Parts: sequence; structure tokens; C-alpha cells
Amino acid sequence: MADGSKSDLFVGVDLGGTKILAGVFGPQLRLLQTAKLSTKSSRGFGSVVDRIARCVRDAVDEADMSLKQVQAIGIGAPGAVDSETGEVIFAPNLQWKDAPLRKELEKQLEIPVFVENDCTACTLGVHEVELKGRTRNLMGVFLGTGIGGGLILDGRVHRGFNGTAGELGHMVLQVGGPKCGCGNNGCFEALASRTALFREIQQRVKAGEKTVLTEMLGDGLAELKSGDLRKALRKGDKLVEEVVESAAEFTGIAIANLINILNPEVVVLGGGVIDALEDEMMSIIIETALDYAMPGTIKGVEILASKLGDNAGITGAAVLARSRHR
Amino acid sequence: MADGSKSDLFVGVDLGGTKILAGVFGPQLRLLQTAKLSTKSSRGFGSVVDRIARCVRDAVDEADMSLKQVQAIGIGAPGAVDSETGEVIFAPNLQWKDAPLRKELEKQLEIPVFVENDCTACTLGVHEVELKGRTRNLMGVFLGTGIGGGLILDGRVHRGFNGTAGELGHMVLQVGGPKCGCGNNGCFEALASRTALFREIQQRVKAGEKTVLTEMLGDGLAELKSGDLRKALRKGDKLVEEVVESAAEFTGIAIANLINILNPEVVVLGGGVIDALEDEMMSIIIETALDYAMPGTIKGVEILASKLGDNAGITGAAVLARSRHR
Repeated sequence: MADGSKSDLFVGVDLGGTKILAGVFGPQLRLLQTAKLSTKSSRGFGSVVDRIARCVRDAVDEADMSLKQVQAIGIGAPGAVDSETGEVIFAPNLQWKDAPLRKELEKQLEIPVFVENDCTACTLGVHEVELKGRTRNLMGVFLGTGIGGGLILDGRVHRGFNGTAGELGHMVLQVGGPKCGCGNNGCFEALASRTALFREIQQRVKAGEKTVLTEMLGDGLAELKSGDLRKALRKGDKLVEEVVESAAEFTGIAIANLINILNPEVVVLGGGVIDALEDEMMSIIIETALDYAMPGTIKGVEILASKLGDNAGITGAAVLARSRHR
Repeated sequence: MADGSKSDLFVGVDLGGTKILAGVFGPQLRLLQTAKLSTKSSRGFGSVVDRIARCVRDAVDEADMSLKQVQAIGIGAPGAVDSETGEVIFAPNLQWKDAPLRKELEKQLEIPVFVENDCTACTLGVHEVELKGRTRNLMGVFLGTGIGGGLILDGRVHRGFNGTAGELGHMVLQVGGPKCGCGNNGCFEALASRTALFREIQQRVKAGEKTVLTEMLGDGLAELKSGDLRKALRKGDKLVEEVVESAAEFTGIAIANLINILNPEVVVLGGGVIDALEDEMMSIIIETALDYAMPGTIKGVEILASKLGDNAGITGAAVLARSRHR
């Protein structure tokens, strides 16, 4: 517990394939300050650990605080995690295998470090900060470059036998459907992630379909971002509308599947795609889920978009730090 | 606990849409005797309760025991169950809603009654009796007339918010696929249940395809049973082979989805379709699941067919009775 020399600060780190985001939180998990660095995973594990430590120091310094005031650090990492040892078992985006993240970071910072899967961390953040812990059965579904999820079942994080539970993105929804990065066809991720949306739009533009996106970004659409889709939709772009609607329908079917299997009380959606396209997608997602889930199973189940946005990861990591810290 | 006048007997009841099976079990859950009655659900809730009571009495009598020796009765019921109150919240096959099964049966038999969803009960039975409790994360998948499942996660039964978790049969695997009884298309149940297998065979026979089944059963195939498919396969019937292989592939994909989502340690398959076609289906199911699940997630996961067969339900119900009884 806090001694005389420490305040009750917690740092949450969202470790992604391209960027590291660190946030300094007060004892009630109010976000005080953030810092960001690129991950540069190609430089190897040791270098990424250095960059995480630097990002944590930067965030604490930005908040005019000192590392001495930090009680614990939580990290959400993109892969399978042994939450007991703090090892990242494997993280394809970082090309890590059995990486002792906790141990190496504790060496550098001399503060207790706790590691969790990134989507599980986000779900913890939503559960604790956004929903104030009011449900025992929460499923988080995050649509970004890929699609992942986190599960809180009967009041506890469900991690599974290999610590990999929540790989929702590779649920096959359409046998023989579009190719997924994992090698299979018709995965949820191949139908509704940002990657899937962009690929579909780019293919249809190549095939001669018209969209305002090419006026905005040029024919190659190389710089396409989720926010551009929102702009195109507001200009009434038919192609983008069709593609986004289709992704929302597949998301609704995926959520119906998950509700039928797990019967959570609350399903929360997040990630860059939802953050950018919430207004356009959520009503279709909910309507489709109601259409596909068993009536007795979806009865009373809430489906909502997280308000935490980009900060879901650091918030959840801070929740982890606070709850695991003794 | 047992007093002088009682032995440690438990009765497990498998309540189905068409038949009631009751089994008397010894204290170590050895099956002593069974009895069977048709359900006759059209006669209404009160009548079915009477028949369950009669079936329990018959089984105990067949075992040359007395009801006084029975410590507790467990029942697996086909629907959503409130396992605390022993009410069947809804069971479409029985046309029950908020049916006070525990209360009414306790009135008749004066023995403690515990009620659980049938697939959850089967999963409990496999967990306790077949696997000797050796895993904390078990998923049961049962292929019969319909498809259902049971979940033991982190050592506890997962029932979910409405007590309906485990509706695996209505996971959509093929958007736009064959029509399901639930009104949707492409559900697992519409692709791999007995109903789906028979419908596919009957449609293809109508369309002029040849099969030894018509020699065995006549052109209408009205009396088709799962065992007939096995006989046809052993005669080298190509049509049945294709249909069974396809169902096994869809089952493998469904199991890969579930492994990706929940990461159990053991997946056990059961139900009439598996009991009849285990030799033909299991290797395809396992191969397909390995092909579709994420390598880090399926690593070390066992997929096996239950040996409990038709007795899975009564065994699980007896496990329930023994574990809940104080």
C-alpha cells in the first residue's frame, strides 16, 4: 500500500504493433496525462522494452509527477499473455515469443508491472471505468486493423487454457468467404475489420466503381483512414455506404453468435472502426444481432459502443495495475 | 448427509422432447438401473411431471431399491433453466414457460430435486465421470436432432445472464446457407444436426441421386435413423459419404470457432449423430478444427468423442444431484 513517499498513481500502457501509448492515472483512475511513441518492433524486444520505459517516463514527466509516485504499471499487449508471469507467450505483430516483458520492464523502472492481453485490458477498462463494474458478464468486441475481444464471465476475466481466449476475429461466419490474414476464409476479421473494409473498397474501385474517396485521396487510395469513410458517408457516397453496411451486418451476426454461445449481459464495441463509424454502424449492428440471436438469449442484453475511444487500452491497463497491485 | 435409513443413491433424469430416461446411480455414480417413458408433452406440464415421477419410481423399483434410499434427483431439461429455483424458464420442445419443475416434483417425491439445462448436465457428466474432473475448461458439443452445448469455464459451469449460454447450434457458419428451424440461415444446426443430414439426403434423393438408403428404407426415407447412415457408409454409399463428410467439416469449423473464442482445454462431442457416426466423423472433425483454429490457441487442446453415449444425460443429472445435495 501507499507509503509516505508515494501517491496513488497508476500508469496504463497500450502496446500496439505500431505505437505505444502510456497514460498516467490518479487513484480514482482519472486520466492525468498521456505520451506516445512509435513501437519500432523491427528493432527487437530489448529496444521495445526501452521505448515502453521511455514512454512511461515521458507520460509521468508530462503530468509533472515523478516515477516515485507510481504504484504500479499495467500493460495491454497484442497477443497471448501469461498474466501470472507477465510473459508475452506470442505476439505475431511484434514477432515476440516467450518475451519476459514484466521482468525486463521492472528491471528498468523498479515499479511493479502487470501484463494482460490488449483486448482483455480494454474490456477491463470498460467494465471498471465506463460501466462502474455493474455487470458480471461482459464481452468486449474491438474492430480495428484486426478484430479481437475480451471476456468477463461470472465476474472474472476468462483467459482459457493457453491464455488466448477471445480470438473472436477468427470466428468463421461465411465458409468460403473472403481470404483472411490467418490463411482461412470468411473469418469475422476478413469481413468487418478496417483491413477488410479498405480491401473491399480498393477492389471495387479497381473494378471501376465510383466513390468520392478517389477525389479525396487519389486513385490508389493509399492513405485511406477510417475517418475518410465517415467523411465519404456524410457526402452520401453509395459505395462506402454499401461496404460499411455490409461490415455492420456481419458484425451483428458475429455478436449474435457470441450472445448465443456465451449469453453475456452487456456487449461493448470499440476499436478504431467503431470510434470512427459508430453513428453509421451501431444501429445496423444491434438490429442484425436482434434478428439473429435466440429471443430468450438476447432478452435484456445491452449492446453499446464504448465511449473510451483511443483511451480504452490505457484505461484498462491502469485498471489492471490498480487491481493487481497489493 | 445420509442418515441410518438412507443409502447414498442418486437418480439422474434426462428429460427430452420425446422421451424421459431415468437412471439410478450408486454413491460412486455407478449406474445401477434405468427406466424409460415417453414424454407426451402435449398433455401439459402437470402430466409430464407425473410421468417423470413415475419414471423415477420405475427405475428405483427396477434396481430393487426404495425411494427412501435416494438422496437427491437431478434433471437435465431441454431449455433455459434457472438452476437456483429449479424453474424451466422456457423449453420450446416441451412448450413450457416458467415451469416450476423442481417444486412440483419435490411435492410428489419428497426428495430434493435439482434442475439444469440438458446439455450442461451432459457436460457435467463427462467432466466428472468420464474425465474424472481433470480439466477446468471443458466444452461439450452435442449433435442430435438439434445441436447444443455446455460450458465449464475456469472450473465452473457457465450459464450466462439469462441462463441460456451454450446455444452453439445457432452459431451462423455460413451467411445465406441452408434454412434453420430458428428462422435464420446457415446455423451450425442447419448444417450438421441429424435434421440437417436427413434433409440434405432426402432433397438429393428427390433430385434423382442414388443411395442404398432407398433400397433399405423405400423412396420416401421416412424411417431414416442415424444408424442407417452408418450402414450405408459401410456399404460404400457415395451420397451418404458426401453428406456426412460435409457435416463433419462444418462441425470442425464450428469447434475451431469455439476454440478461438473460449480456448477450452478439452472439447467433448456427443449426441446421437456422434454416437452413430463417431468412426466416420471424428477424424474429419479434428483435422478441420486444426486447420481452422489459431495454432497458439488449439495447441494442446483435446477433441474427443464421449463414451457415455445415451447415458450422458442421466449421468450428468446424477452428478448434479450429488454435487448440489447437502
